[in-house]
Amino acid sequence: MNKKKIVILGGGTGTYVLLTGLKKYLPQIDLSVVVTMMDSGGSNRVIRDEFGLLPTSDIRQCMVALASEDTDQTLRKLFTYRYESGVGISGMTFGNLFMAALTDIYQGNQKKAIQETCELLGVTGQILPVTFDNTNLVAMYENGRQVLGEHFIDEPREELLGKKIVEVSVFPSALANPDALSAIKAADLVVLGPGDLYTSVISNLVVDGVGKAVGKSRAKKVYVMNLMTRVGQTDNFKASDHVVEIEKYLSGGKLDYCLINNDLKFPKEALEWYKKVNTYPVVDDLKESSQTKIIRTSLFDKTIYQKAKGDRLVRSLIRHDSAKLASAIMKLL
Amino acid sequence: MNKKKIVILGGGTGTYVLLTGLKKYLPQIDLSVVVTMMDSGGSNRVIRDEFGLLPTSDIRQCMVALASEDTDQTLRKLFTYRYESGVGISGMTFGNLFMAALTDIYQGNQKKAIQETCELLGVTGQILPVTFDNTNLVAMYENGRQVLGEHFIDEPREELLGKKIVEVSVFPSALANPDALSAIKAADLVVLGPGDLYTSVISNLVVDGVGKAVGKSRAKKVYVMNLMTRVGQTDNFKASDHVVEIEKYLSGGKLDYCLINNDLKFPKEALEWYKKVNTYPVVDDLKESSQTKIIRTSLFDKTIYQKAKGDRLVRSLIRHDSAKLASAIMKLL
Repeated sequence: MNKKKIVILGGGTGTYVLLTGLKKYLPQIDLSVVVTMMDSGGSNRVIRDEFGLLPTSDIRQCMVALASEDTDQTLRKLFTYRYESGVGISGMTFGNLFMAALTDIYQGNQKKAIQETCELLGVTGQILPVTFDNTNLVAMYENGRQVLGEHFIDEPREELLGKKIVEVSVFPSALANPDALSAIKAADLVVLGPGDLYTSVISNLVVDGVGKAVGKSRAKKVYVMNLMTRVGQTDNFKASDHVVEIEKYLSGGKLDYCLINNDLKFPKEALEWYKKVNTYPVVDDLKESSQTKIIRTSLFDKTIYQKAKGDRLVRSLIRHDSAKLASAIMKLL
Repeated sequence: MNKKKIVILGGGTGTYVLLTGLKKYLPQIDLSVVVTMMDSGGSNRVIRDEFGLLPTSDIRQCMVALASEDTDQTLRKLFTYRYESGVGISGMTFGNLFMAALTDIYQGNQKKAIQETCELLGVTGQILPVTFDNTNLVAMYENGRQVLGEHFIDEPREELLGKKIVEVSVFPSALANPDALSAIKAADLVVLGPGDLYTSVISNLVVDGVGKAVGKSRAKKVYVMNLMTRVGQTDNFKASDHVVEIEKYLSGGKLDYCLINNDLKFPKEALEWYKKVNTYPVVDDLKESSQTKIIRTSLFDKTIYQKAKGDRLVRSLIRHDSAKLASAIMKLL
């Protein structure tokens, strides 16, 4: 019997959580993850500007999630380590420096460096950068302003706060990784999200041919709704707004499923912290349509996340529960 | 049958070459290397000043030399890699950043970090830092000037060029690693050098109790004579001057053997390059004594070494031949 093929499109924490959950089903499924390559903040700025390499943080997180439990614990610990000392080194992740060194050893062949690292970590599943071209995310806001660079979209300047993003694209144009397109074409199930709508999910779809490949794929398509809104990206977005935005980038393709959390007992202290940064639970206003089936179930993790020391970026406090999310996804196969 | 115990005291390229050669005898011998911890230049300056850790370059070289051939080639390549890009990162070695991260993960326990790295690399033999105290090499010159810091002794200021070093010590005083003392005490053969006389060999002997432990050890003691003089350390030194200096730090102990190269067909282009930097082959003026047996044999490597790209320090062009050196050492057991 052929294994069912799942392809995830994402990057960031949401994808890490989903992969961690799907890992235990790996004997039964053929798993690929298409990863956004537009990160331009923190450790990735150094990797891009000073090393002239593609950003690797999103890839690194996928590697850690899919690394074999048998892999040397030392290596696993190192791959999640962030330096706190050293001029020019503080804030960098070990994993990014690891892949920068390895790419140089392989004369700039980042694909080979990723493969070798996956082998060393005993990664099961395919980790596929959405593109090997050096490109940037561009957001056009409702006031006509364009912003170049993922981290400026992620943490927008004051004048753009509350302004809606009307279109996302890449500049310069980037060719899709052919392996990513093949995986999407052959998939039984394509999972979009969870993750920051524009900078982790749509950032994959806007690479030349990727949105169309998903839209035209024979695979069932599921979108995993975010738990919380995201300042600068989805302020005031209800669930339906997320779906509308995703489908705009699928070349006429429609979602078959939308998976949404219906357990609203979020920890009070987390909600209070989020409120201070104008972040709120996404309101479920979804209506069943002939095309899209809405699946409502309990999906959030009761643990409140702490930021890793040395980390300079904003991270999610409330996250999806790996096991519940993976179980809900597996039921769609 | 108990394996014969060899203990090497050193650090740097000479020790790397010797260990590489001795590796193939590992099934027959019990090998330990006591490593100098005073390096204060290049990548080590950052490790010491910015990370607050002990220098690891000498240890890293020993690890690479003794790493299992079965160890993942990717890891072995990475451990010899030096970054060329990145503000604050260029010139750093991957191995040093690896151990800095690991030491932080183990809450500052550098001993544990070294053990874990050795395990990951499949190192056979014991790698023993001569001290775990943060200390510096101090040289007193014939004009009464004192200089603090290994790299200032290695590359002295103009006013000290040609001035003889009359005494080497450490500041602040440092406790010897008890495991190093035990290994020396139990050894059948102690090998001093090859390596920079003051900064790689005597730098071990001046740590509290180490010179005395070697001097009093029941082990046979062999000094491997350097091939070339070293600017700022052994200018105009003949072979006998090296022996006199070494024995000054053995608390009355005497060398049993001195191993010296007698093949003087050094490549002409290497000698010309060395001449420009006032470096010359060490002249063999050794006379057999009742205590010290002189062993003359062909020991140099016909290959001329190139500096690794990104490396900012001066390295040896003419080196001992690993196989010949190891074979000569094994004959002393």
